[in-house]
Amino acid sequence: MPRCVRSEGGSGWPERLEAARMWTLYDFLESGNGYKVRLTLRELGRPFIYREVDILRGESREPWFLEKSLVGQIPVLELDDGTCLSESTAILFHIAEGSPLLPVGQLSRTRVLQWMCFEQTHVDGVISRARFRRLHPEAIPTRPEEFEAWWAQGTQALSVLSERLSRHDYLVDDQFSLADIALYAYVHRAGEGGLDLAAFPALRAWFARIQARPAYLPIDQTPA
Amino acid sequence: MPRCVRSEGGSGWPERLEAARMWTLYDFLESGNGYKVRLTLRELGRPFIYREVDILRGESREPWFLEKSLVGQIPVLELDDGTCLSESTAILFHIAEGSPLLPVGQLSRTRVLQWMCFEQTHVDGVISRARFRRLHPEAIPTRPEEFEAWWAQGTQALSVLSERLSRHDYLVDDQFSLADIALYAYVHRAGEGGLDLAAFPALRAWFARIQARPAYLPIDQTPA
Repeated sequence: MPRCVRSEGGSGWPERLEAARMWTLYDFLESGNGYKVRLTLRELGRPFIYREVDILRGESREPWFLEKSLVGQIPVLELDDGTCLSESTAILFHIAEGSPLLPVGQLSRTRVLQWMCFEQTHVDGVISRARFRRLHPEAIPTRPEEFEAWWAQGTQALSVLSERLSRHDYLVDDQFSLADIALYAYVHRAGEGGLDLAAFPALRAWFARIQARPAYLPIDQTPA
Repeated sequence: MPRCVRSEGGSGWPERLEAARMWTLYDFLESGNGYKVRLTLRELGRPFIYREVDILRGESREPWFLEKSLVGQIPVLELDDGTCLSESTAILFHIAEGSPLLPVGQLSRTRVLQWMCFEQTHVDGVISRARFRRLHPEAIPTRPEEFEAWWAQGTQALSVLSERLSRHDYLVDDQFSLADIALYAYVHRAGEGGLDLAAFPALRAWFARIQARPAYLPIDQTPA
């Protein structure tokens, strides 16, 4: 069982017992997928232990972590009974059930999932990749044509999103939901991937609405 | 409104009225994502109109189709009231609600979604890409290193899946579910992408179990 590096202030028994009952998020600070879970937990008012996994150093391929995630991928949310959940979309649906972040109506829930799947293919697979390669050029060599393809596809994804958000405050039913959290995570940092957000005022207005929420936490701030 | 090319046998009014009340699937026969929806509709015993969209000829970028899918992407399922659903994972969750394909328990549902998200990133984004590029070498030029990366990542995904299916008949709760449909779609055709399935007997046994189901339809057979 890995040591929980945050939130385990003391070494005394009562604190450990408390920690053992809490959920633990295995995460990497700059990951947008991890950030989706952080933001959702904050919105739900659910305290959790934050455990950084150094994916650049290969920690997510270590045996102790592969026991929690078959694919060796953060984020993993470990529930109080030891159940480990993977895949940010699945984690978000699991923990937001019954909260205002996940609507009740069937078609609304389908629309939330639809946007989250759109994100997985057209944002996470594209913008997030360009961002990672630019932030860590030494990790994987990247050819200029690869960036150009990501910028073209990423700009198309931003256009689809902007078209929607120029007519609505939030993505589904004009209510803040998991869909907004999932899309916001990588889109608000698209500039780090080399994409230009200046042409998308509707996106920047939507960023501001999300950043004004009381539970908001920036992506680069470790949860307390 | 596009003409429905299949299932609209006669030109008389009653048949047209019947067609107007049916669901229409906009699809491309060789697409594994479309095939997921076809298999699910067959399992549910739900008749539907099959409308082929020639994505190679650019039909999915035509204005009539962009009205149904913002991203110009098949599959799209048009419900009888004109509502259009995109993203195969969201479509499957929508139509299978209340059926044995989608378990009732919250953790089981989360596991189904988790496998479907795993598929989207590690199979659809990898094996399906290698398959498309090999089936249509003229569509997008591909460098040998790209195939090598897909084969390495794809083989890792097959290993994860095989590890699970060597211990269980189906992916979640030992019951056939949306997770099996979603993974089967591209995995059983991984050979067309240049991946070797010979090393994975557990996968081939799972293929046989799925192919033995009464509602089964091969990917290359247009729904009647």
